[in-house]
Amino acid sequence: MEELMIGEDGKPLSKAAIKKLEKQREKDRRKQEVADKLAAEKAARDAASPDYSVDCYGKLPMNQSVARLNETRTLISEVNASHVGSSILLSARVQTVRPTGSKMLFMTLRQGTDSLQTVLTVNAESVSKHMLKFATSISPESLVLISGEVIKVDVLITGCTVQEYELKVSKIFIVSEAARLPFTLEDATRPDSDFTEESGFSKINLETRLDNRVIDLRTITNQAIFRIQAGVSKLFREFLDNKDFVEIHTPKLIGAASEGGANVFRVSYFKGCGFLAQSPQLYKQMMVCADFERVYEIAPVFRAENSQTHRHMTEFMGLDMEMAFQEHYHEVLDVLDGLFVSIFQGLESRYKKELATIQRQYPYEPFMFLEKSLRLEFPEAIAMLRGAGVEIGDFDDFNTAQERLLGKLVKEKYKTDFFILDKFPLAVRPFYTMPDPSRPGYSNSYDFFVRGEEILSGAQRIHDSAFLKQRAEEHGVDISTIQPYIDAFKYGAPPHAGGGIGLERVVMLYLDLGNIRKTSLFPRDPKRLSP
Amino acid sequence: MEELMIGEDGKPLSKAAIKKLEKQREKDRRKQEVADKLAAEKAARDAASPDYSVDCYGKLPMNQSVARLNETRTLISEVNASHVGSSILLSARVQTVRPTGSKMLFMTLRQGTDSLQTVLTVNAESVSKHMLKFATSISPESLVLISGEVIKVDVLITGCTVQEYELKVSKIFIVSEAARLPFTLEDATRPDSDFTEESGFSKINLETRLDNRVIDLRTITNQAIFRIQAGVSKLFREFLDNKDFVEIHTPKLIGAASEGGANVFRVSYFKGCGFLAQSPQLYKQMMVCADFERVYEIAPVFRAENSQTHRHMTEFMGLDMEMAFQEHYHEVLDVLDGLFVSIFQGLESRYKKELATIQRQYPYEPFMFLEKSLRLEFPEAIAMLRGAGVEIGDFDDFNTAQERLLGKLVKEKYKTDFFILDKFPLAVRPFYTMPDPSRPGYSNSYDFFVRGEEILSGAQRIHDSAFLKQRAEEHGVDISTIQPYIDAFKYGAPPHAGGGIGLERVVMLYLDLGNIRKTSLFPRDPKRLSP
Repeated sequence: MEELMIGEDGKPLSKAAIKKLEKQREKDRRKQEVADKLAAEKAARDAASPDYSVDCYGKLPMNQSVARLNETRTLISEVNASHVGSSILLSARVQTVRPTGSKMLFMTLRQGTDSLQTVLTVNAESVSKHMLKFATSISPESLVLISGEVIKVDVLITGCTVQEYELKVSKIFIVSEAARLPFTLEDATRPDSDFTEESGFSKINLETRLDNRVIDLRTITNQAIFRIQAGVSKLFREFLDNKDFVEIHTPKLIGAASEGGANVFRVSYFKGCGFLAQSPQLYKQMMVCADFERVYEIAPVFRAENSQTHRHMTEFMGLDMEMAFQEHYHEVLDVLDGLFVSIFQGLESRYKKELATIQRQYPYEPFMFLEKSLRLEFPEAIAMLRGAGVEIGDFDDFNTAQERLLGKLVKEKYKTDFFILDKFPLAVRPFYTMPDPSRPGYSNSYDFFVRGEEILSGAQRIHDSAFLKQRAEEHGVDISTIQPYIDAFKYGAPPHAGGGIGLERVVMLYLDLGNIRKTSLFPRDPKRLSP
Repeated sequence: MEELMIGEDGKPLSKAAIKKLEKQREKDRRKQEVADKLAAEKAARDAASPDYSVDCYGKLPMNQSVARLNETRTLISEVNASHVGSSILLSARVQTVRPTGSKMLFMTLRQGTDSLQTVLTVNAESVSKHMLKFATSISPESLVLISGEVIKVDVLITGCTVQEYELKVSKIFIVSEAARLPFTLEDATRPDSDFTEESGFSKINLETRLDNRVIDLRTITNQAIFRIQAGVSKLFREFLDNKDFVEIHTPKLIGAASEGGANVFRVSYFKGCGFLAQSPQLYKQMMVCADFERVYEIAPVFRAENSQTHRHMTEFMGLDMEMAFQEHYHEVLDVLDGLFVSIFQGLESRYKKELATIQRQYPYEPFMFLEKSLRLEFPEAIAMLRGAGVEIGDFDDFNTAQERLLGKLVKEKYKTDFFILDKFPLAVRPFYTMPDPSRPGYSNSYDFFVRGEEILSGAQRIHDSAFLKQRAEEHGVDISTIQPYIDAFKYGAPPHAGGGIGLERVVMLYLDLGNIRKTSLFPRDPKRLSP
């Protein structure tokens, strides 16, 4: 039976087209014959030449902890002048392999955000052609165990973090081999400005990155972003620990949809059902009623909001604090203010290297803040917006555009990317917010802003059980869903205030990354639950 | 219609019994008449006598942050010799009010775990009878703002933490009034040994405590327990931070029931469904694949296990770590070992006061551990159990009773409440556990034990994608539910090991509290989702 040849458009080919194709096939076949012959000859030559490097390279068996030799392995970040001329052993990831001619190969090794150039040169004593061939075949992102002599170079190696030294490889073994990557780490680490039409580089979109997050997270930029994220939590805890706060863990599984119920995830709970806490709000307040006067919690919060924006996720990390005060909720505002200044200062002083790394891929305007933070009251903000032509009522909440404009106006006038806005209208805040005692319509509540977006929301809370119940009812809250919360205030509750911060949002806004998914390891939104 | 009188047994009363009852009622009525008359006379007398203390007591209006005077308030824990003879201001909770005769009253104030005796004595200048009456009426657990002179006492006040000084009250105001309590804080703080038949004290069972957790958590014992809990996390982080670990936050909402699926909670996720992570296991390993070589996470884990035991909860805090190693998984075991020793040492040195407080209510045998921890291999444990008459196979896992017995045997022989058991049988461990390379049937896995109960479980994990897939299939795991996990190991994965610790379990076992609910602020089990 004659073969029916089908073209790319799915239709049978014409006779002319078939002829052309057959000609091409014949050409390819001949080419292949020549290539095969050459390869066979080369293999024969190689087999004939003894491999004097045979013990210096290869693939290690899967490490099942057979031996413990306590060999010293050097970190790339530690390589310095004292190593020059001596041999070091290191395990690292292969970032790139670049053969140069037939006798030399450059390989860039990476450990986290650090990188080192290595060079392999065929010589008559220790490095055979076979060894070079093996090294050439190592796929990018494979893990290797490598040793060699540290050499001082004449010209700085600008592509690596170690710029003054390179490693002259004497042994190289594969610890774990990498399959073909969905994208290269180089492409994943380029700044947007590199993706010009002439460059030919293909930009990797965020979805592809997130689908292959384990590879994407290896970029030096992501290594740095998530060290900054850990740093924010660390600075948060350090500051509050120093002020006698106690870390608490409140339940995420709750029996009733306690904060309205609209954006809450429902959980099957044995024969009944439960819900996921939308915030630790009620529980952290209950802890203040339980005489833990100053508490903080770092924990996931869950929001079943069906919105696909740059700043919403269905699961994010909440940095929450709550604190009893003596006279005035501004005692708490002072602590929160000091907390943020301390975080900003700590990031600048301790994470210089990480910030510089991130800047290279995602350049941003330096973050400006005042040592004594700017505090505005709500009516002042309204006046500023009106001054810029915005029509807005005295008691209207801001929309996103107005928030951004306000941030811009504040920056122009006060030279700061961070400010505090106090005294929000009562009507736009949750039922448990304490009203302003002297100005009807306002409340003892505040938001903090970074680069024109809200980064913290907080308030003095109502600590009187009867008044709390009344306010909940006025807000249409079903009291039965919050009875234990209302009851918590019946047995002597101190005046208190607090605030909640979104960790990923702090990192996103501080670094001006533009999308919150870039600051969550495995982001969750209405369309993404994997990986 | 005649009243039908019913006795306590539910049956109508006899005529004689009715007569007796009526006589008693008449007697009570007359008594009440006399009491009312006396009270009315007293009130008239009181009203006639001018109240010269009128500005020194009363109920403050709800604090809405009206003024900020920056008045110095002294903490009970700070009261010392330098205060004697001068007046201090403090805000505290009223623990007890004990009038003595008609002109004097003792009041115990409490702040967290600290307490102070105060005394109010009627005098002609500053403390009126009206003020005494007001103070007498203050309900326990109310919050007060109080001032007075610090007096050195002759006889130590054993019932308070401040034993050498008391406060001679000159002013007392209620900040927040407490309703009638479901139980007293004194009863809630008594050791079990106090509840003798003669004492007449009523023991408060755990369910009642948990139903009224906000009050229960105010006992000095609970104040101390949860500071210990926060201390364990703090020591965990300090130790790992010093070893260059990075804190991570992995998702709790996941798309597939990835670890078997039996004990997993299902969540409604918009139009689909999701699950709650049973541990960060797969994600923390993926983070190691993503070049975060040393990671830890402190986060809630969720287990839909329908078991009502002393050591299971449906939500608890996991302290997880995972670490790439160079040669042998014992590098990781060493870190975990050092971690626990550091936690035990830190608790002893930094939390002396809290431990002593807890001891008073829940006496426990001092915790014994060795500076160089005991490490046994599984066959040694089997031999010890067999030596004690237990019939057990070479590859059988322990049940709870066997674990406890092993703990007892180890303590007798090695004088330690803490030990490490290495080399568990492969068959009793999860699919991702690395087999022992030299002894078939065993694995590179370990458990840590405290007082005869498992406190940590960990292992070297399989880092080879193909082998991991094979082992998962052998365990009957549906590969499609863990595809992103399997894939994570395709791109060069370092050998690694780690472990997971239950925070509440560490605290329960270290303090020998006997029930895990005592070490969770708001415990969750199949029957409890509230408060």
